[in-house]
Amino acid sequence: MTSFTLDTSEHQQFVDITDRVIHAAGDLAGVGALVVASQHTTAAIIVNEGFDPDVTVDLGRALTPLADRDDYDHDEGNSDAHVKVALLGAAQLVPVVDGALALGRWQRIFFCEFDGPRDSRSVVVSRLAGA
Amino acid sequence: MTSFTLDTSEHQQFVDITDRVIHAAGDLAGVGALVVASQHTTAAIIVNEGFDPDVTVDLGRALTPLADRDDYDHDEGNSDAHVKVALLGAAQLVPVVDGALALGRWQRIFFCEFDGPRDSRSVVVSRLAGA
Amino acid sequence: MTSFTLDTSEHQQFVDITDRVIHAAGDLAGVGALVVASQHTTAAIIVNEGFDPDVTVDLGRALTPLADRDDYDHDEGNSDAHVKVALLGAAQLVPVVDGALALGRWQRIFFCEFDGPRDSRSVVVSRLAGA
Repeated sequence: MTSFTLDTSEHQQFVDITDRVIHAAGDLAGVGALVVASQHTTAAIIVNEGFDPDVTVDLGRALTPLADRDDYDHDEGNSDAHVKVALLGAAQLVPVVDGALALGRWQRIFFCEFDGPRDSRSVVVSRLAGA
Repeated sequence: MTSFTLDTSEHQQFVDITDRVIHAAGDLAGVGALVVASQHTTAAIIVNEGFDPDVTVDLGRALTPLADRDDYDHDEGNSDAHVKVALLGAAQLVPVVDGALALGRWQRIFFCEFDGPRDSRSVVVSRLAGA
Repeated sequence: MTSFTLDTSEHQQFVDITDRVIHAAGDLAGVGALVVASQHTTAAIIVNEGFDPDVTVDLGRALTPLADRDDYDHDEGNSDAHVKVALLGAAQLVPVVDGALALGRWQRIFFCEFDGPRDSRSVVVSRLAGA
């Protein structure tokens, strides 16, 4: 297991963390998959297209109305962020094949900030043994 | 692998199962992650905030209109529950570090009932080896 | 690790791949879970009901308006597909117990095409060791 932190600069932001995940994971011999887990309840992890940055712009545009309500009870006023994390997921699992992440040609791993900007957001990367 | 069951008392209900998962998992030495999996197609598992119960109330409030339609075909009349499980996920993976669940300060594991109340809902907890 | 490909015939289509996953995985002795991962950013993997085909018809009906917008920027015009994959997930983890997939009575594994029809969609199946 290892982890890293990142700072976010926008209220809602999709940060490509693929290279940081690979660096944090180290040697992948014998590894069957990596768990990439947000340690926060207002930030998610997804695997999606990273080639055209418009894709995550569009994703943010679509997500906002799904979680936008004016009748939330939670005092902190960030229930929309909790809803977005429930929809996208707090962690993703990426298979490892022959010592490399088995990502498709366009797939990248994103940290999804929904209650930023924040300092020191934490991501855990855990190595699981293949069988 | 191990499993436990729980009864739900509401049609839509978010039950914090973190302690039951930890108890079911037993000794976590050598474990890299736990899989927590619902065995049902109308109940999901999520990781989200458990400190303020209003968060899951708000989550339920946001989810309901996303799955509420009057043109579903499925005879049993619970397609909204199947849609919610597709959106949230039937299983979650929680990393384990140094023999303890690597959950962030506010993160808890929830069983999400969308077609209750039901008796004997089953949750599988599977231990994966670290690498 | 292993993989298989499938062709899709509809723009949006839910294909039950449970038997193909089991066949691809081979001997499950010592395995704690399978990762089933789409290698594409416009196709997801879910676990949901496979007994009544109306369930996935209804799921498609509910998903479409959640991702349907006319203000997307992405040039390829398939941002709705990327949004659906973010909501459902690029990969699922299925626990294995005593050498068999620990799926509930009604649970099946689906490949979810959101930008078809396409030839040679690729699914990776990775075996993770139990602990």
